[in-house]
Order: sequence, then C-alpha cells, then structure tokens
Amino acid sequence: MKPILGMTMGDAAGIGPELILKAFSQEALYGICKPLVIGSLETMEFYRERLGIRVRFSPISNASQARYETMLLDVLDLGLIDVPNLKIGVVDPVPGKAAVVYTQEAGRMAMAGTIDAIVSAPLNKEAMRMAGYHFEGQTEILGELTGSKRYGMILLLGHIRVLMLTTHMALRKACDAVTRDRVLGMLELADQTLRTFGIRDPRIAVAGLNPHSGEGGLFGTEEVDGSIPAIQAAQAEGIHAVGPVPADVVFVKAKDGEYDLVLAMYHDQANMAAKLLGFGEVVTVLAGLPIIRTSVGHGTAFDIAGKGIANEKNFVKSVEAAAELARLKKESTG
Amino acid sequence: MKPILGMTMGDAAGIGPELILKAFSQEALYGICKPLVIGSLETMEFYRERLGIRVRFSPISNASQARYETMLLDVLDLGLIDVPNLKIGVVDPVPGKAAVVYTQEAGRMAMAGTIDAIVSAPLNKEAMRMAGYHFEGQTEILGELTGSKRYGMILLLGHIRVLMLTTHMALRKACDAVTRDRVLGMLELADQTLRTFGIRDPRIAVAGLNPHSGEGGLFGTEEVDGSIPAIQAAQAEGIHAVGPVPADVVFVKAKDGEYDLVLAMYHDQANMAAKLLGFGEVVTVLAGLPIIRTSVGHGTAFDIAGKGIANEKNFVKSVEAAAELARLKKESTG
Repeated sequence: MKPILGMTMGDAAGIGPELILKAFSQEALYGICKPLVIGSLETMEFYRERLGIRVRFSPISNASQARYETMLLDVLDLGLIDVPNLKIGVVDPVPGKAAVVYTQEAGRMAMAGTIDAIVSAPLNKEAMRMAGYHFEGQTEILGELTGSKRYGMILLLGHIRVLMLTTHMALRKACDAVTRDRVLGMLELADQTLRTFGIRDPRIAVAGLNPHSGEGGLFGTEEVDGSIPAIQAAQAEGIHAVGPVPADVVFVKAKDGEYDLVLAMYHDQANMAAKLLGFGEVVTVLAGLPIIRTSVGHGTAFDIAGKGIANEKNFVKSVEAAAELARLKKESTG
Repeated sequence: MKPILGMTMGDAAGIGPELILKAFSQEALYGICKPLVIGSLETMEFYRERLGIRVRFSPISNASQARYETMLLDVLDLGLIDVPNLKIGVVDPVPGKAAVVYTQEAGRMAMAGTIDAIVSAPLNKEAMRMAGYHFEGQTEILGELTGSKRYGMILLLGHIRVLMLTTHMALRKACDAVTRDRVLGMLELADQTLRTFGIRDPRIAVAGLNPHSGEGGLFGTEEVDGSIPAIQAAQAEGIHAVGPVPADVVFVKAKDGEYDLVLAMYHDQANMAAKLLGFGEVVTVLAGLPIIRTSVGHGTAFDIAGKGIANEKNFVKSVEAAAELARLKKESTG
C-alpha cells in the first residue's frame, strides 16, 4: 500500500507551491505515494496557471474525500490566502500565518494517522513572526503540537543518516558540548527515532571529536570523559551504540552500510560529509517526534518566487524519503 | 623529456623493495619516468627471486651509467645490507641505518640535479632510531640535508593539494593554533612550495575553522582574529590567498579546480576530505624543500613483508605524482 503524504504548502509568497506543482507534474512520484496538499486551493490554482504546469486538482474538505489519482492532486483547502492581494516574494503576515496553520493541520492529521507522513514546503520565519508566532521554525510548531520535549534534525544523505550533537556554534564550544549527558541524550533520541522509523535494532556510530578519536586521551580528552562513557551508558540501556569512530572513517563506513545513523559532533563534520558525498542540498527528517516529517534543506527563496525557475529536485527527494520512511514504518508495524 | 626519479629502497626488512619491484614489473610507469633505484642491489635481487617478479637490473655506481630501458631498473648500489643475515619483518639497526643513507644520497642527488625528484619507499622509524639517528622521519633527514627551516607535508588528492595547519593534536588545541602568524607562515610555505612546483600564481584557499567560517564572529572568533588578518597580510605580500572558505564548501570548490591548494585547519578536516573523496591511501609531497619528494601514506608493514601481498597501488601513485611534479617544474623553468 502506498503511503499517504501530506504536503504542507508553506509560505504562499515563496517557492513552496511551485515545488509541489513541479514535483507532481510528472507521473513518477504518484507511483510511490498518495499525495495530499494541505494549503490553499486558490493559491495552487494561481501558480498552476502562472507557471503553466499541467496537473489537475481535486478540492477536498477532509482526507476521506481524496481520490489519489495519477496526475491529480487532492488539495485539502484551508484557504487563508486572498490571492488578488498576494505579493509574491514579499514577507507578509497573512501567508506567514497561513503556513503555520497548514503545518499544524498536517501535524494533527499525522498524529491521527490520517496521513502517513508530512513533507514540508518551506515557510518564511520572518513572515511567521510578523504574524505573531514565536516558533523557531516548523520543527518547533510540530514539537509543540505533538508534546515532544527533545527533538532534532536528521540529515538524510541517501541511506546515510546524520544527527548533529551541535550545529551553529563556535568549534571551541562544540568541543565543550561533548559531555556524557549530552551525547547520551542524543543517542537515546537517535535510537528512539530510528525505532519509530521501523528499524528494529538500530546501529548508531558516534563520530570522534579529536584526530583518531583522541587516541586514548593523547590528542584530547573529550572521548575519554564524554563520548565513551555515554556510549557505555547507552549500551547498558540496550542501545546499539558504537565508537567513537574517527571522523575520517565513520562516514566511509556509514556509506558502506555499517551504521543506521552517525552522531556527528559538530556542524562541519556533518556538512563536510554531506557535500563531499555529493549531497549539495540535503533532505532532513525530524527526530524525536511521534510522526514522520521530511523537509527540504533550503528556504522560501523569495528572490526567485513566482518565476518558474525554482528547482524541485530537493523537494522530490523529500517526498521520496518520506514515502520510504512511511513504507518502512508500515512494514514494521504490520 | 621524461624526468629521472630516484627511488629510495627504504627499510630492506619491510615492503619497500617489493613495492618498487611490483610497480616496475609493468611497462606503464617507464612511459612517464626514468626510474633509478637508490639502495642495495643484493636486496633487490633477493626480493625479485623470492617474489618471482620479472624485471631486469642494471647495477650502476653513478647516475651517468644509467640506461633507462623499459623493464630494466638501474640500481645505484650503495650496499649496506648483508642479505644472508637480513631478517624480514624485524626491526633492526642495519637496514635502519641503510635506509637513512639511501635517503641522504637521494637528497644529495636531487640537490645536484642528478635526479629530478625523489620517491620514497617507507623506512622504519624505530629501526632508524636503533641505528642512532634522531630524525623524526625521512622529512627531517631531507630537511637537515637541504638546510630547510620550515617545511610540512602536502596531501595529494588527485589534483587537490592539502596542507594542514595542525595535525595530531586535540581539536581544542587546533582552535588555539589558528593565529595570524601561524596561518601566515603556512600560507608563505604553501606559496613558496607551489612556485617550486612550477605553478606561477598559486591560488591558496584557507579553510574556515568554525561553521560558515564563523559568520563574522557570530560562531567563533578565530577567523576574525586569526585567519582573516593572515590572509590580508599574505595578500599584501603578493600571495594569492582567499578565504576563509567554509570547510564544507572549500573541498568541493577545490575539486572543481578553483584552488591550487587548501590550507586545512585541523587533521580531520583534511582527512575527511581525503577519505570522502575516495583517497583511502594518500600520497604526500614535501613542502618547503628545494627538491621534489613524494611518498606513500603507509609504513614498512613488517607484518606482511616478504610475503608478496603488499599492494603497490599507493606507491605507483607516488611515482606518478613525482613524475608529474617534475615535469611541471621542468616546463616552468624551461
């Protein structure tokens, strides 16, 4: 059975609608999922005409009405956009608010099992804030909605999954963050998430921070004091954690399928792997939520919105990843 | 004109002789260079018979006698090994001393212009120390011989060259090392070396230390305080230095040919690039010496010495790299 994917339209003034239209203007994706757009029918129609994209719409007011036919997009029409007043490429609280509502609705549907996964088109954070919301992004909207306390973002590099212990902070501070408790917390988060994805006994590798993973404390003590005790504690909890594996080796082994996830210690460790393995734009999936949600690595791209030049490749990959994750989850839960 | 490459035999008890024999048991390499082995004829003969490798030798006592024929290795016989007493795979001061003498002779020949470049087979550091030498390795032997004060090792990843600001030290300490003076010193070393290689106006990229190269001090100050002033000072000296370029981007651009060399800030930055770009075993070339010298990334491999199972691939690459560098240098100097 093909999984039902709820696609949130994102900010109506950005490239979100265009990405959805382009992705589903070809037959391929209909073969792996049942797409359901959560957004504004009027906006979707506007961009379809403007960009001359050949796809039919079927307006629905709830998921049970969806027809899931090839080259037809069922659109759960939540409105909220007044198209004659829509300013393409402009930060505005009206589409800002609408994008939040679409995401919240998608979250509720995923929680209820009406859809099997969410694929998010990008929203604009500034527009969201202008509309009075204080979320960091869609992650936090869904985190609040699902009552999740600890969550993170997993980069999907083909079959390689990468979770980051730290992201946008000085490398020196990232070194400070390699503590037993923090690494253990992330190992638990990774394990729990991969099980949600239907992976039975996920193998999680902890990347080394120092050269050769510190070589027993010779080149830095973070492994000895932080990640090694964390790995041991995780193992005691039944988590299949291994490492620390030197950073120059761990992604090569992950590429060869040795691990289900790599816990990277810092931003560039994960992002060097992403770029050097050829994933210029990455697909991310949320960790720590009871639902599956993938998204593109880029934003609303207001500068090119409405011009028909947005590249949907990354969005297509997000759809494929969500479909695959939903399929695995279904298989594992019977 | 094909360059003359002096190949030092390395430690007679290790895999060095086998690497040379295997590399030159096929015609291909004779097409790009004139090989000249600097070592022990008796040892070369011993391994040739033991391993059944089909290649002829021409013993010579100085380079002018070399015939440089295909499938024939001219061997500058310095002796020093008593083959009946040679213990394969054992740390011993006799081959330890001999390896140093071969390297020194090669250094003198390169300085005199008798050979165009050196390719080193591995020596054993412990054996060298047992023989009473206090060099760190072959780099220091050649450094002393050529009177060079500041030198380093460049990783050759295909056409990508990488010099490391720091190597085997804690990541935290590597952060401390990103100072103006240190980065500037390495930029000067890189520039000087690349010019020695015949590259006229070498473009050198400095990799960022922090995520997004610190984003103007937002995620760490090492770029603002250290590498940016160093780049500016280098530019003022006429060095074509650029950056800091974020670490996840710089190697991708280097791969696309944008730079002649990347100055990496720490061990894993360089080594992640090497491994993820598919260079499991790297070839290195010395920086800061007035001569060209390449070497394999591995050691004497005493555990497999004499068994005929050593893989010569990396040595072949070292030969190819030396031939290419020597060719470029010849071209540039007319």
